[in-house]
Amino acid sequence: MSGISSFNEGDKVNQFVLIKSVTKGTTSTGKPFLTLILQDRTGEIDAKLWDCSEQDIVDYAADKIVKIHGEITLYRGKKQLRLHAIRLTNEQDNIKKSSLIMSAPVSIEDMVESITKYVFEIKNPNLQRLTRALLKKHHEAFFEFPAAVRNHHEFMSGLAYHVVSMLKLAESVAKLYPSLDTDLLYSGIILHDMGKVIELSGPTATSYTLEGKLLGHITIMVNEIGDMARQLELDGEELVILQHIVLSHHSKPEWGSPKPPLIKEAEIIHMLDNLDAKMNMMDRALEKVKPGEFTERLFALDQRALYRPKTISISSQMQPERN
Amino acid sequence: MSGISSFNEGDKVNQFVLIKSVTKGTTSTGKPFLTLILQDRTGEIDAKLWDCSEQDIVDYAADKIVKIHGEITLYRGKKQLRLHAIRLTNEQDNIKKSSLIMSAPVSIEDMVESITKYVFEIKNPNLQRLTRALLKKHHEAFFEFPAAVRNHHEFMSGLAYHVVSMLKLAESVAKLYPSLDTDLLYSGIILHDMGKVIELSGPTATSYTLEGKLLGHITIMVNEIGDMARQLELDGEELVILQHIVLSHHSKPEWGSPKPPLIKEAEIIHMLDNLDAKMNMMDRALEKVKPGEFTERLFALDQRALYRPKTISISSQMQPERN
Amino acid sequence: MSGISSFNEGDKVNQFVLIKSVTKGTTSTGKPFLTLILQDRTGEIDAKLWDCSEQDIVDYAADKIVKIHGEITLYRGKKQLRLHAIRLTNEQDNIKKSSLIMSAPVSIEDMVESITKYVFEIKNPNLQRLTRALLKKHHEAFFEFPAAVRNHHEFMSGLAYHVVSMLKLAESVAKLYPSLDTDLLYSGIILHDMGKVIELSGPTATSYTLEGKLLGHITIMVNEIGDMARQLELDGEELVILQHIVLSHHSKPEWGSPKPPLIKEAEIIHMLDNLDAKMNMMDRALEKVKPGEFTERLFALDQRALYRPKTISISSQMQPERN
Amino acid sequence: MSGISSFNEGDKVNQFVLIKSVTKGTTSTGKPFLTLILQDRTGEIDAKLWDCSEQDIVDYAADKIVKIHGEITLYRGKKQLRLHAIRLTNEQDNIKKSSLIMSAPVSIEDMVESITKYVFEIKNPNLQRLTRALLKKHHEAFFEFPAAVRNHHEFMSGLAYHVVSMLKLAESVAKLYPSLDTDLLYSGIILHDMGKVIELSGPTATSYTLEGKLLGHITIMVNEIGDMARQLELDGEELVILQHIVLSHHSKPEWGSPKPPLIKEAEIIHMLDNLDAKMNMMDRALEKVKPGEFTERLFALDQRALYRPKTISISSQMQPERN
Amino acid sequence: MSGISSFNEGDKVNQFVLIKSVTKGTTSTGKPFLTLILQDRTGEIDAKLWDCSEQDIVDYAADKIVKIHGEITLYRGKKQLRLHAIRLTNEQDNIKKSSLIMSAPVSIEDMVESITKYVFEIKNPNLQRLTRALLKKHHEAFFEFPAAVRNHHEFMSGLAYHVVSMLKLAESVAKLYPSLDTDLLYSGIILHDMGKVIELSGPTATSYTLEGKLLGHITIMVNEIGDMARQLELDGEELVILQHIVLSHHSKPEWGSPKPPLIKEAEIIHMLDNLDAKMNMMDRALEKVKPGEFTERLFALDQRALYRPKTISISSQMQPERN
Amino acid sequence: MSGISSFNEGDKVNQFVLIKSVTKGTTSTGKPFLTLILQDRTGEIDAKLWDCSEQDIVDYAADKIVKIHGEITLYRGKKQLRLHAIRLTNEQDNIKKSSLIMSAPVSIEDMVESITKYVFEIKNPNLQRLTRALLKKHHEAFFEFPAAVRNHHEFMSGLAYHVVSMLKLAESVAKLYPSLDTDLLYSGIILHDMGKVIELSGPTATSYTLEGKLLGHITIMVNEIGDMARQLELDGEELVILQHIVLSHHSKPEWGSPKPPLIKEAEIIHMLDNLDAKMNMMDRALEKVKPGEFTERLFALDQRALYRPKTISISSQMQPERN
Repeated sequence: MSGISSFNEGDKVNQFVLIKSVTKGTTSTGKPFLTLILQDRTGEIDAKLWDCSEQDIVDYAADKIVKIHGEITLYRGKKQLRLHAIRLTNEQDNIKKSSLIMSAPVSIEDMVESITKYVFEIKNPNLQRLTRALLKKHHEAFFEFPAAVRNHHEFMSGLAYHVVSMLKLAESVAKLYPSLDTDLLYSGIILHDMGKVIELSGPTATSYTLEGKLLGHITIMVNEIGDMARQLELDGEELVILQHIVLSHHSKPEWGSPKPPLIKEAEIIHMLDNLDAKMNMMDRALEKVKPGEFTERLFALDQRALYRPKTISISSQMQPERN
Repeated sequence: MSGISSFNEGDKVNQFVLIKSVTKGTTSTGKPFLTLILQDRTGEIDAKLWDCSEQDIVDYAADKIVKIHGEITLYRGKKQLRLHAIRLTNEQDNIKKSSLIMSAPVSIEDMVESITKYVFEIKNPNLQRLTRALLKKHHEAFFEFPAAVRNHHEFMSGLAYHVVSMLKLAESVAKLYPSLDTDLLYSGIILHDMGKVIELSGPTATSYTLEGKLLGHITIMVNEIGDMARQLELDGEELVILQHIVLSHHSKPEWGSPKPPLIKEAEIIHMLDNLDAKMNMMDRALEKVKPGEFTERLFALDQRALYRPKTISISSQMQPERN
Repeated sequence: MSGISSFNEGDKVNQFVLIKSVTKGTTSTGKPFLTLILQDRTGEIDAKLWDCSEQDIVDYAADKIVKIHGEITLYRGKKQLRLHAIRLTNEQDNIKKSSLIMSAPVSIEDMVESITKYVFEIKNPNLQRLTRALLKKHHEAFFEFPAAVRNHHEFMSGLAYHVVSMLKLAESVAKLYPSLDTDLLYSGIILHDMGKVIELSGPTATSYTLEGKLLGHITIMVNEIGDMARQLELDGEELVILQHIVLSHHSKPEWGSPKPPLIKEAEIIHMLDNLDAKMNMMDRALEKVKPGEFTERLFALDQRALYRPKTISISSQMQPERN
Repeated sequence: MSGISSFNEGDKVNQFVLIKSVTKGTTSTGKPFLTLILQDRTGEIDAKLWDCSEQDIVDYAADKIVKIHGEITLYRGKKQLRLHAIRLTNEQDNIKKSSLIMSAPVSIEDMVESITKYVFEIKNPNLQRLTRALLKKHHEAFFEFPAAVRNHHEFMSGLAYHVVSMLKLAESVAKLYPSLDTDLLYSGIILHDMGKVIELSGPTATSYTLEGKLLGHITIMVNEIGDMARQLELDGEELVILQHIVLSHHSKPEWGSPKPPLIKEAEIIHMLDNLDAKMNMMDRALEKVKPGEFTERLFALDQRALYRPKTISISSQMQPERN
Repeated sequence: MSGISSFNEGDKVNQFVLIKSVTKGTTSTGKPFLTLILQDRTGEIDAKLWDCSEQDIVDYAADKIVKIHGEITLYRGKKQLRLHAIRLTNEQDNIKKSSLIMSAPVSIEDMVESITKYVFEIKNPNLQRLTRALLKKHHEAFFEFPAAVRNHHEFMSGLAYHVVSMLKLAESVAKLYPSLDTDLLYSGIILHDMGKVIELSGPTATSYTLEGKLLGHITIMVNEIGDMARQLELDGEELVILQHIVLSHHSKPEWGSPKPPLIKEAEIIHMLDNLDAKMNMMDRALEKVKPGEFTERLFALDQRALYRPKTISISSQMQPERN
Repeated sequence: MSGISSFNEGDKVNQFVLIKSVTKGTTSTGKPFLTLILQDRTGEIDAKLWDCSEQDIVDYAADKIVKIHGEITLYRGKKQLRLHAIRLTNEQDNIKKSSLIMSAPVSIEDMVESITKYVFEIKNPNLQRLTRALLKKHHEAFFEFPAAVRNHHEFMSGLAYHVVSMLKLAESVAKLYPSLDTDLLYSGIILHDMGKVIELSGPTATSYTLEGKLLGHITIMVNEIGDMARQLELDGEELVILQHIVLSHHSKPEWGSPKPPLIKEAEIIHMLDNLDAKMNMMDRALEKVKPGEFTERLFALDQRALYRPKTISISSQMQPERN
């Protein structure tokens, strides 16, 4: 696929991009310039707009679509776009924002269908009713939000995509270990990260809300479960257990869970969450390098640089599903 | 004050005590015996009841009051009661359980009055209404529960006593640092540990409930605030801040707070909580030793053994208020 | 299933057991006694043999089968057997050691077949030849040894049982994430713990060998791979990668891996190893308690005590396969 | 108050400032330039002097007062002064260094008076004589030095200001907890940081001395107490305790105290020190942002960014006392 | 050498020993008994004196010499003496305390001579005068005290023996690395642990003094150097450096040094201290086991159990010098 | 010695240097430039080549020798070379690469002789044969490779130089502690870091190989020992011990040793390794500063900045041997 992620030093660029963020600066000689982060659905790149006018500062704001013309250079080992020309889109361009945003490799409709299937398999009536009610309450955001601001599944619909992957994993694992309770697994997985629809600001240009910063998605979601249970007048030990599963899914206090998993299914959900998140991070880092090379150091993998073997073909996780 | 805490090796004992807990054991030769933890309002002591009958096992259960006769011995450096005789109380004894339980050095009435005074000083209407409503909902338990199972304020009404001490401290500190917001301080202090009325089982023979073990008092109380705000239809940033104060009052993830204090008053409440708890632990440990001696190692003070100076008189914190 | 694991306080016992270990002691009055750890295929229990004769000390040695008669008592909250009578087995008893040893819930033949199937699916000829050669070299021990001295899969054939479970898991996971290389997964899983056949002393009464203590199973196995590759005159990057997978499968230096996983499949093998081990530990701890109870604190799960929910039925992992 | 701390991007600047420090550099084209840190009593700002002459390098040295003319720009998100003109002060300017230095919000005379009052309340004659003698020995520096090079109370007379605040806090706390010994509290607080008059180089342009780097203020002060006690021929357990209070006031080895507090008053002094230091840091960080904003990340508060609530007015700690 | 360290289970014992410490206990049936720690110059052993009389309690106190008759038994895997008879020594026995105390393998005279030689090699007059003066001030204790209460060199004259070993090591190392300053090495080594003569209570039955507990030998010795320098009216950077060497010789804050070594010779002294201490610990632990065995877990070596190789002869460090 | 290490700001430079590494960059205005790291035998320095041509990029590659003409400037406190002219060497220049590379202060012949001497002193035939065979196998690389990429002994022949220093140290220490086994010490020291000849890429422009990154020199060398023992058909406990010594010489898991030293000689080798490495680092850092100054912060010494005393002469470790 062509686009930002496939640019190499020296390439000429001529395409539409979305401005993800803008920072204004001043050169040492006092002239204003803009640092733009530009994105298309394959990735993002930095660009400087030197000697910019007052009008430029107004025009080239975050979330605007622009046509750019320029060349790829290297700055401190990182690719950068040297701008030769930039202009705003107009109607004739007929370009849509959605075509410039990275999003999950499956459609929202397919994910709704998948999740609905698992909800129906929850046999405990309390757990099923609660999960359905919360899915309904946050339906739109749940299927559009990313799973994070960075690190893993930080693309549109990333949250739902991550949940669908975990549900499939859980189904496979439960077949191998029949002592696992699938009601707790499925309801726990669907709800574990749903608090992000309140913790984060939205599906694009995502940042943390005040509630996100002061309470965090775990605390927010434990509250949502408690509140919804009272509204639906549900009662029973399984509701406290479900709150516990959400509360403990980061596993350790220093990772944000004040209680470690004390229920078997809580421990398993933590592990599957970790597995799916790491798989996503590793695949995306390895796609960017050639066989025989190491990736850049990955913050969320303890600064490890992974090696992509020469002799063994790695096909992208996402490609098969993209078509 | 005479009683268990003042016993020395060799003392003869003849008094009423409350059975705090009982464990059944078997000697190496196969005979049953009971290990009793006995308490009066000054402290507790272990005792063994050897060669006990089936009836003894029925009679001498937790929460029963008994008359004992025996002698104090040392076992591995710890005082123990050697029982010569034991019997259940009867009506003629006319002994009340409350006279055998350690409790706060001020009356419940006085504490209700103190806390009410601080509630009235909360000027923000949302914070005042919410604090009053939650105090009312949990009134009885709040004034009877201990603040903990062990370590500090683990006596009847210890929770309210701890809150009153912190409120007085906060009032003093706010006078010295006028930038502090007393509305947040007072409402935060009153609510910070209120979740213990659900986390713990009751005012005596206290243990952890299932909710206490799976969610913890911090998460429980953040939920209670959210729920009550919705019931009262209150809204505003200060309610999220109040939840944050409760959430962060243990200061660090590894101490149970998923978010560290991000509001100045949250940081101060954490510090005052710590100061009052440590003062209580230190005073009680130092009361048990003579000037020129070290206390036993104190678990909650990082295993430190404190020194009680010779030349400097330490009067008990509690004595002045007891009269 | 009746047997040691199902004993309760007060039960009369009359059965054959295997002596797992013996320690000689002396009472405070100078008389010798034996502390025996006795086992059958369901579990183990401590027993004291008081006033034992010189002959008793000779007779009741580790790995001997004895008939015992006694009663279950509680000592410091732990079940203990009070011996009324003990004798060595004789020919008429017709009791076999294998009937008293806990072992994997599937037969060795079935495990050989499973593993052979996965070996055949390894397409890279170097990896397949090497894996076959090492399986052949250590065949007998590999299918009889436990996976550990304690904590998880510490029963006869535990090593192979653990490997089979991981292979099945890997197959499921690779279906969901097609970018995974199954050659590396299958060869890595089969070899990752094979060094235990040198680190440990044998299938029963297992302890650590000198090589186990000074080098450890990870270093031992990396050597075995290097040595076998030279013997078979194999060469190629994938052999270094396979050594790396074994070297890094404990993930962190402080857990015994001098290099962290730097290959995607190495990271996944670490996670599946962890998942299968914890599942085994959790299932066995939860089987010992009733719904609504907490397990004892589990050392290998960071001292957590797990809760077994009331409302949700947990069937044993092993039962379905035992029939 | 106008001055450096209130500058915004684009502001024209024309005022006197003190040069806090200077670093000489060379541009990539080989021309010399100066990086100046300029301060007035409200704050500090960086400025570059490009194309500077040999004379400029001589003139614009640390601790010189200059008149500057320029404009505020942003460089990597940080305010910087772009210099249009700079000159040294002359007599006609009639500007005093003290008017350009940030200092405590109360006068030295008032602080001398406050501390003298607390010295008189020390009843133990050894502690009083020793405290007076050390205050006399280091009088001038004690009332002029900052409490630190950065982080908290890093302004002129910051050391004494911090001590006065702690003494007032200690007085309040001792009223609430009458078991505290005020003699130890007052003498310990006055002396705890006095070693900084040897550890640091002076009241302005403060850096660490060789003794400061090799021994540190805690070790220096414990020595000073021991030495003065011998000069005054004082003797008694309370002198060792006072040395212990100074030694342990950072609480943990990793924070610089080889012994943790083993005396109740030592623990309390540590806590009050911490409370006053954090209050100072938090107030100064919050003053720089508007309600509804977060502060920058604060190094000395574990990199936390604090939130300044919208609805709650925060008045500066210092304003009330400044008048 | 015969004596306590060479006893095996079942041995009959009949010899003089020194009572190192006594603890009084009471049996569960209320009878008093004594737990004695008995020592001779080869080691120590526990013994119980059952059914002891009032006179026994008076007679068998710490530091008394007694003749014992008994037998070695095993209790929880540890050797213990079962007493058949015990009596106090009388004049006819003609037994001296010094013959029952473990002490350094070289005489005090030899150690005085060794250390004097190194003092004369210190060329810097300030360092030499200071070192001589402090050696003179603490002469007697310095050559009699142990280096510690436990772990290493915890025998009579252990402190001086440890210093002599380190001086010899330093001399060898300085020959290989001529950039090392021997003046700092020799004076630093002689003084580094001298504070132990104040930190510890005496050469036998050693415990910590109040100054030891509240200040520690490092702080004590830094004070001693400062004080002596002032008495001798010495001045110069090298005195601060010498204090720094003592202050930093435990290397890390969590090991008791508030400053890490910032001088090359300080770092080397830390390393030689560590090397000599570990060599002493390892030799003594390995002497107690046979070739092919592991030692017990050694607390001061991070709980490691060391292996004594079969094929390689280990001769005791001390034997050559003992003759 | 003149050369790069003795340059000061403002110096004119005109000499031959070796290009250690090159990075290509682009200025903000889009023009290519080269960042060169240049070295001679005394040190290295950065230089920028602005406005470079296509030919320049081809010519000035790593490992090329060039004649440079320029001037020393300061950039962010670090010395940098401003290039006035640069050209490749030609035959007439008659300059050898070896004259521009820093290498050990003794000749390879001398080091071969030293190490051979110690090999002959190994009395155990297995250890001697194995050590000789491995020295022979890796002879050339062993005497040319550095000991590391940075931090200590990162110069040509640094590996052998480090081994010779440790052998001399071990000989001295074994004289003072006769219980040490010199066979284990000498063979262990010679082999401990030999795996670096496979972990690193070569004697100059050194980087890590794939085996180095995935396995590390410790694992590689343990394999080499096992493999050579099998080739030589050697057998015996001492070979496992030798592998253990290599495996454990980094002492702690987090420093790369999966097993801590469990043999006395392993512990001593770890300590001598540490001592020689730190001595090398400290000497080289101190040589760069004047008496009375602190060095830069040293990464491998926990970021400490060391002080070079004024009054005490520090002669370079290397000078005496250089002549």
